[in-house]
Amino acid sequence: MADRIVRVNMKTLAIKEEPLPAKWAAFGGRAMTSAIVSEEVPPTCSPLGPDNKLVFAPGLLGGSSAPISGRISVGAKSPLTGTIKESNAGGQAAQIMARLGIRALVIEDKPEDASKLYTMELRKGSVKLVECPELKGLGNYDTVAKLIAKYGDKKVGYVSIGMAGEWGLTAASIACTDRELRPTRHAGRGGLGAVMGSKGIKAIFCDDSEVSMREPANKDAFRDASRKFAKALKEHPVTGEGLPTYGTNVLQNIMNEAGGLPTRNFREGQWSGASKISGEVQHDTILARGGEGKIAHGCHAGCVIQCSRIWVDKDGHYKTKGPEYETIWAHGTNCCIDDLDAIAEMDRLDDDIGLDTIEMGAAIGVAMEGGLAKFGDAAAAINLLKEVQKGTPLGRILGCGTDTMARCFGVSHVPTVKGQAMPAYDPRAVQGIGVTYATTTMGADHTAGYAIATNILKVGGYVDPLKAEGQVDLSRNLQIATAAVDSTGLCLFVAFAVLDKPEAFEAVYEMINGFYGLSLGANDVVELGKAVLTMEKKFNNAAGFTNAHDRLPDWMSTEKLSPHNTVFMVPDAELDQVFNFVT
Amino acid sequence: MADRIVRVNMKTLAIKEEPLPAKWAAFGGRAMTSAIVSEEVPPTCSPLGPDNKLVFAPGLLGGSSAPISGRISVGAKSPLTGTIKESNAGGQAAQIMARLGIRALVIEDKPEDASKLYTMELRKGSVKLVECPELKGLGNYDTVAKLIAKYGDKKVGYVSIGMAGEWGLTAASIACTDRELRPTRHAGRGGLGAVMGSKGIKAIFCDDSEVSMREPANKDAFRDASRKFAKALKEHPVTGEGLPTYGTNVLQNIMNEAGGLPTRNFREGQWSGASKISGEVQHDTILARGGEGKIAHGCHAGCVIQCSRIWVDKDGHYKTKGPEYETIWAHGTNCCIDDLDAIAEMDRLDDDIGLDTIEMGAAIGVAMEGGLAKFGDAAAAINLLKEVQKGTPLGRILGCGTDTMARCFGVSHVPTVKGQAMPAYDPRAVQGIGVTYATTTMGADHTAGYAIATNILKVGGYVDPLKAEGQVDLSRNLQIATAAVDSTGLCLFVAFAVLDKPEAFEAVYEMINGFYGLSLGANDVVELGKAVLTMEKKFNNAAGFTNAHDRLPDWMSTEKLSPHNTVFMVPDAELDQVFNFVT
Repeated sequence: MADRIVRVNMKTLAIKEEPLPAKWAAFGGRAMTSAIVSEEVPPTCSPLGPDNKLVFAPGLLGGSSAPISGRISVGAKSPLTGTIKESNAGGQAAQIMARLGIRALVIEDKPEDASKLYTMELRKGSVKLVECPELKGLGNYDTVAKLIAKYGDKKVGYVSIGMAGEWGLTAASIACTDRELRPTRHAGRGGLGAVMGSKGIKAIFCDDSEVSMREPANKDAFRDASRKFAKALKEHPVTGEGLPTYGTNVLQNIMNEAGGLPTRNFREGQWSGASKISGEVQHDTILARGGEGKIAHGCHAGCVIQCSRIWVDKDGHYKTKGPEYETIWAHGTNCCIDDLDAIAEMDRLDDDIGLDTIEMGAAIGVAMEGGLAKFGDAAAAINLLKEVQKGTPLGRILGCGTDTMARCFGVSHVPTVKGQAMPAYDPRAVQGIGVTYATTTMGADHTAGYAIATNILKVGGYVDPLKAEGQVDLSRNLQIATAAVDSTGLCLFVAFAVLDKPEAFEAVYEMINGFYGLSLGANDVVELGKAVLTMEKKFNNAAGFTNAHDRLPDWMSTEKLSPHNTVFMVPDAELDQVFNFVT
Repeated sequence: MADRIVRVNMKTLAIKEEPLPAKWAAFGGRAMTSAIVSEEVPPTCSPLGPDNKLVFAPGLLGGSSAPISGRISVGAKSPLTGTIKESNAGGQAAQIMARLGIRALVIEDKPEDASKLYTMELRKGSVKLVECPELKGLGNYDTVAKLIAKYGDKKVGYVSIGMAGEWGLTAASIACTDRELRPTRHAGRGGLGAVMGSKGIKAIFCDDSEVSMREPANKDAFRDASRKFAKALKEHPVTGEGLPTYGTNVLQNIMNEAGGLPTRNFREGQWSGASKISGEVQHDTILARGGEGKIAHGCHAGCVIQCSRIWVDKDGHYKTKGPEYETIWAHGTNCCIDDLDAIAEMDRLDDDIGLDTIEMGAAIGVAMEGGLAKFGDAAAAINLLKEVQKGTPLGRILGCGTDTMARCFGVSHVPTVKGQAMPAYDPRAVQGIGVTYATTTMGADHTAGYAIATNILKVGGYVDPLKAEGQVDLSRNLQIATAAVDSTGLCLFVAFAVLDKPEAFEAVYEMINGFYGLSLGANDVVELGKAVLTMEKKFNNAAGFTNAHDRLPDWMSTEKLSPHNTVFMVPDAELDQVFNFVT
């Protein structure tokens, strides 16, 4: 099936298919979503109004047999940050959309009758909208159960929103089902679930039954590059050993030792309770409980890292995915909750309601700072999330994220940039990640330029995390590389190998070359990254963002973080040099 | 007593008095607050953090016998809009502060123990802070009653915040007592009450007992100019007749006839219920109920317009001030509530809790749009305000204003600019006020450049309200003139006479010349206005505001307003010319 752009107008319900324009031939994932949003969405429009567009795009290698290439990019103007936004997730949707030939699914305008709710059906050669009043107000688990009852559980994938997205809450996520058809892989950041809700789309059914793997233009070259890539991933200690064994939460102890683990709403950088919720303890607990018979798990087919997990309760029954490091930090460390089962309960609630776990943990931390609950009180934290589920005013405040919680409860110690909560790394102890939080086009986001790699894990060299020197160059290079990786459909974790092993980096463009019959080189990857960031930056500028927004909260420059007793030290003038390649 | 700047540091409790710097000798009111905020507050700081400063400044003519010169300016970085903010009010505080020689009262930093609450005592030759735990959580009426019990009711004035300010709600106002010592005159816009609350100041006691009227440098010149000014105000039909007879709510019928009366959350421009809550009906009702023996009332001593009223209940007992036009529009028209007693109940609640009435009415309109209550349901609207009084989560959402209400309830039809609600004039039917809303340094604000005068009342010439032509020049000139008037302490309503009568304009600078022994001319007034706006604009630019923020909500360019069926038509490129004098 020829690759194409599918456009769905939610006001007229018209569905239009366009051949892929030549200018976007080498765009996928984030490059595709950011190109369409920056070209077609008025930068100053209301994010939940008719002029915003919600774009889904598999990566360039999506739907192929390239290792770990099944991330899906979702883009729009964010109702949380007001910036352009790309949030990507695992799950099965990208592979299926790609095999259906859908390089981008663009959802436009909104229903005049806001009570209408639709499921979109994507099958080979057909795109359909059907009303689904029976799904109204359901969480993601119930939604998927009803979808499975209707569409089956073989060779399918589901994308859906929970009640948070229906209600337009600005921390709402978009859920993609994993290989077990559980709605656990979320495009979490930036409130894209609210945009989907504003368009009246409750779910997308992706039918994988009549399509097959996408075929490369040059089979041999593609196969060779794929093998070289998989081998490099296996050989690197982070992707070949650390992540498969302990999952992303291997970072809990590492960040605690580094003194950069934000504790008690970013008041301290180390916590005595961290060891109780570490990746090692998580690993041992899953094994002791029997799990579902395994530790390592892939969030989508074709994953060769397998850092995902399944969390089971004390009786060995499925509870939720293994909460990721950022979730365990957000709901645990940041709120001083040292109970993995309580954290798993919150992870399940977030996934079901359709909420970004990072934003929720940060917002609950601010709520605790504001006196709504005590730090460490797991039951109170769980009850706060249940308020969102019920749609109470308090729940709506929480569901709108950290800044809204802070505003409503008069808290000024707020760990956000551009309205989005900081993830699990304190910039005062890891200056490089502070540069990324401050300057990325996305609002505070660790994945946009993961300086932890070089500041803490000594991957891709080493830059002292406690000094200002070198952080701007580090963050810039990582942001450029990330924007390119996010366009391929590859999981960002490939970056550990790519940064350290020249053959891994080569394999990335060799896979693309083999697949599309192109002859890209290293420099083309860098240029792609720069092109993506340039589009995003220009959109944000036109939306009213300036250097003044590329700043951490003021208190991070004055309030010292223990144990290093450092503040964020990178000067404003240097921050303004991160995007020096945008003209 | 020599004029000076009083600085109070709320962290150290140190009080410092400085001679008035020469550079600020001809600054008062808004010029003074905006100069101090723009020089001393980091533009990107957190508005409720320690780096913000709250500045009170009487106008240049404050404390003198100049007619209607007792407005007080309050300035800070706004927690509602993130912009610089000047909000001014009547009441007695300005006159007393001016007579005490306080040209600016600057409240800096914040207590480390956020539970501390202070009353500031301003007496001749002394400034003191005393803790006042007994006032914690009280509304403005109870606060003032306790202050009167302590400090008396003769030759005093009180400034205070209600619970909204204590809790940091971003629509919190600062109340000043009127001549009857009722907390009815509010610096309402921009959430400055929350800044006062963040500083731990509950109230300011202003002692008028040992000071006398400020004496002019040139008595004869000052007296002559004052008489000339008073005469011009008496002779102008708006200030001499319309406002004294019917109060500001004389505009209800006028705006309804003009088709620019925002109804049902800015869905229509005319309303059948308007005539039931008009200024004429308000006038007749007060007379029929006996009032307190009068219709016309001055919001501060020395007022010669007397547009303020006293509202009494059906039994003739004091209820609240006569709600102003903007309040009657916000709580009435905008929510389709046609009951003056219900509106008065809401006005009283706003004044007591310490909330901006415009922001509350607009936020309730959005709540009604979001399904929280039915349009027209007065009891539901009153109950919403009582939620703020109780500090419930819903109340906190409302108390944070229109944008927060919209965010929490997923409403995208939101009448705000830079986070502040539009007042009682629809830009689609009065294009000039749209230019002011979009471009003023303050967020949507009618007082910043009151184009209604020329678009509707045909004061200062006439510019067709339904055309784009001429609106940018009109708004620019009005914004410049307003910034100057706001610096004098004169009530903005003098502008009606000043715009129409050359001798009224002359009298303004002649009064200043007579009082200070200066020789300013017409051009100096314009230059003062430009200087004030330039400081404000530069602060906002440094805080991250750009042309992209100088826009009305996108739906105002597409959704036609009945009865004229017009949209907002002034092109973006023209809006960007309003501040063409800022270099």
